[in-house]
Amino acid sequence: MTTTAELLNRYKNISKEIFTFECIVQLLEWDQQVYMPPQAAEFRAQQIETLSKLTHEKRTSDEYYKTLNELLEKKDDLSEDDTINITESLLLIERSRKLSPTFVARKAKASATAYTAWIAARTRDDFHAIVPFLRENIALSKEEAELVGYEECPYDALLESYERGSTLSLIKPLLARLGEGLKELIPQIQTKQGDSLPPTAAHPIEAQETFNAYILECIGYDFSKGRLDTTTHPFMTTLGPRDKRITTRYIEQDYLSSLLTGLHEAGHALYEMGLREDQAGTPLGTTESLSIHESQSRLWENIIGRSRAFSHFLHEAMREYLPAEYGASSPESIWRRLNYVTPSLIRVESDEVTYSLHVVIRLLLEAEIFTEDLPVEELPTRWNELYREYLGVEVPNNRLGILQDVHWYGVGFGYFPTYALGNLYSAIMMNQIRKELPSVDEDIARGEFSHILHWLNKNVHEQGMRYRGPVLAERLSGEQLSERPFLEYLKNKFEK
Amino acid sequence: MTTTAELLNRYKNISKEIFTFECIVQLLEWDQQVYMPPQAAEFRAQQIETLSKLTHEKRTSDEYYKTLNELLEKKDDLSEDDTINITESLLLIERSRKLSPTFVARKAKASATAYTAWIAARTRDDFHAIVPFLRENIALSKEEAELVGYEECPYDALLESYERGSTLSLIKPLLARLGEGLKELIPQIQTKQGDSLPPTAAHPIEAQETFNAYILECIGYDFSKGRLDTTTHPFMTTLGPRDKRITTRYIEQDYLSSLLTGLHEAGHALYEMGLREDQAGTPLGTTESLSIHESQSRLWENIIGRSRAFSHFLHEAMREYLPAEYGASSPESIWRRLNYVTPSLIRVESDEVTYSLHVVIRLLLEAEIFTEDLPVEELPTRWNELYREYLGVEVPNNRLGILQDVHWYGVGFGYFPTYALGNLYSAIMMNQIRKELPSVDEDIARGEFSHILHWLNKNVHEQGMRYRGPVLAERLSGEQLSERPFLEYLKNKFEK
Repeated sequence: MTTTAELLNRYKNISKEIFTFECIVQLLEWDQQVYMPPQAAEFRAQQIETLSKLTHEKRTSDEYYKTLNELLEKKDDLSEDDTINITESLLLIERSRKLSPTFVARKAKASATAYTAWIAARTRDDFHAIVPFLRENIALSKEEAELVGYEECPYDALLESYERGSTLSLIKPLLARLGEGLKELIPQIQTKQGDSLPPTAAHPIEAQETFNAYILECIGYDFSKGRLDTTTHPFMTTLGPRDKRITTRYIEQDYLSSLLTGLHEAGHALYEMGLREDQAGTPLGTTESLSIHESQSRLWENIIGRSRAFSHFLHEAMREYLPAEYGASSPESIWRRLNYVTPSLIRVESDEVTYSLHVVIRLLLEAEIFTEDLPVEELPTRWNELYREYLGVEVPNNRLGILQDVHWYGVGFGYFPTYALGNLYSAIMMNQIRKELPSVDEDIARGEFSHILHWLNKNVHEQGMRYRGPVLAERLSGEQLSERPFLEYLKNKFEK
Repeated sequence: MTTTAELLNRYKNISKEIFTFECIVQLLEWDQQVYMPPQAAEFRAQQIETLSKLTHEKRTSDEYYKTLNELLEKKDDLSEDDTINITESLLLIERSRKLSPTFVARKAKASATAYTAWIAARTRDDFHAIVPFLRENIALSKEEAELVGYEECPYDALLESYERGSTLSLIKPLLARLGEGLKELIPQIQTKQGDSLPPTAAHPIEAQETFNAYILECIGYDFSKGRLDTTTHPFMTTLGPRDKRITTRYIEQDYLSSLLTGLHEAGHALYEMGLREDQAGTPLGTTESLSIHESQSRLWENIIGRSRAFSHFLHEAMREYLPAEYGASSPESIWRRLNYVTPSLIRVESDEVTYSLHVVIRLLLEAEIFTEDLPVEELPTRWNELYREYLGVEVPNNRLGILQDVHWYGVGFGYFPTYALGNLYSAIMMNQIRKELPSVDEDIARGEFSHILHWLNKNVHEQGMRYRGPVLAERLSGEQLSERPFLEYLKNKFEK
């Protein structure tokens, strides 16, 4: 008979092996984005497919499943940590096992085909051309929902893969209230802020690289466990327990935009760098969900990165690291530039305040698609109506409207809400940080970030998947997850 | 019953899968050398070990072995190409299958341990400290020879893994005659060449990078199928059929040394870029041996790269790509600098003429170790004697002597001779190129390399493993493999 210790050992070995392979797939993808020569693309796609398939087989193997079930039977012998690992691993594997390799392959193929069609449709501003692909992707998502199962509605099954334990009945009212709150707030901010600001001077990319690397190092990004490279679409990726790489993009004419992108990706990386190394590959050593991940990137990019204190720190850092801008800027002018609010058409270019409205709109549409069977052909009209209603802008064409984001064309329904939830979580966390570290603004202003990072390490990063998002929020703040802390944070900020 | 076509299909699929995995291991290693953050080292070593083990399992699997043997039984139905693939694949797999996973693991461990010990021993100039490791590595190599088998002597079994079909009885007399010929030639060259040259101006690395990239592009290195990065120890690696990357290192004070390193690695890459893509992963789409590989790197680095015609091309290229050197140099001064001959202690820093003597010495020592049981303790004395005899230099310490190369400490006996054999092959090939392309010097001088590359593609690269080195040499020149063409090439060059 196999002892519990032996079973646990087997569980850890399999988990570690899966993690090892997952990280190799990540390296193949990182290199593809960053350094791979163009003609290598076809073979690389095949390598990724081969290794992903192998990883999926390992993740859903009978041996792994059996080990987990046997451990579950010995629950009384297990420590609390082991129990969490076993339970959560089992949940993940059960979902994966419900999706046959054929279904996974069909979905991957649909995603790849629709992606190519989307690129073409967007270029030609031709929504009509993408309709059949979008319809197929929605049908596939509904099929997936039936395969994996749900309690309340099919959309919850999709949410689950990004946002464990979330349901539409929980997040729709939350984001609807967030939308109403922001709609009220925006005109007040606009009245106050006055005319838009003149552009800053252009700064050569090399100068921005040095400046950004210095700032990221200050906030705690450890270059001995990561790298900063340049790509068109910035991202963070995990290549190992001590290998969390980020990429960014530079805009010569807008050094602050480059910096915010770097802060965002570094925020993701700090979360991954703060995970427990002894639990690498198990749920306790894995990030909880996309929204908690976003809470970390947005905390550094927005709540800290766009704060008055951070503007002071930035201006001081320029003295040595971006001298060409030092004399032309002041903490006040930097802050104003970082916080200029204006409703616009494109989500990824929007400011801290209007951003969440773009997400609310997408959630409302996804809800209509999955609970009210909104016909695909009517999506552009509904999109444009909602943009008028929430952001007060007219969408001139579908390129600047419904064709702007890749997610739906990549069969990614249920993903968008995590962006807005991340904002809500980040405000809740920062409230708590303020309570426990009263000198936080002074710390930020003088470039001292270690107390903040330490707090995040202890309360968020090292918890891994111990608590689902709403539980974590309640543990931290003593209150139920709500949109209020985020709205209050914005009100306070712009009142001053 | 399985048809021949089905079997062939299975063979190709397994070969392709093995190749896919081998290339992923190469990416893990490339990244490790080039971009990986330092703290990722431990996990990376584990990833490489896991994936190498998996690749070895696939390479030696019963399914693959059975498929090959079944195909061999149907030899009469096979095309000539398929017959070569099956026969050569079987030879490779049979060797691998003779080595148990335990033995492979023991060897890998001994190599890693001895490598670490070697680094320490070299730093402290302490040969004594490395003796037990070296003794163990020799014992392991002898054990490997017995496991895989041989006809004449155990050393042949080691040679076989780098240089298929070679034997000590073939190459020892060849390299001994090469050694005698070079020993005679060197004093004649030295008398003629006069005093050493003053150093060139230092050139910033960025300027050298642009210059080298231009030169490599001219000789045919295709940057859409490769990259040029910087590492301490330059290398070429295959990450896919269209992904052949090289690395180099720059010396500010010696731009020609940087350039020669680039030409050497690009020569390796041109071989790999010239392989048949439709045969990727099979013997016909694989490079023949290390010495043929070296023949390609040395042909571009030495025979072309250090020719008078190339000096003209380089000088002309400087006008636009290294203007700071253009006025200070002439084709004549570049040629003299590229061809200054002087016996020295370190193999990797030696010139074109003395280089092979370093290799001859190492082969003689390996022969003594494996056929005369030369005691390890006596190696430094024999090393120093041979350096006195062949190069006329006194070895002041073991750091500059027997501790300079990694090979033996990494259990790499039988590897060294391939360096000198590569020189012999390169001279034979260039003779043939001269016969078929009478305007080759004019072509080189004006930067026209496509005819040479085309010749190499057709006669060497596209042949894959069709012919073993000596057979290829005889097919190309009509004469048996010999040291004479190389010695004559050097005599002609330095007589002028």
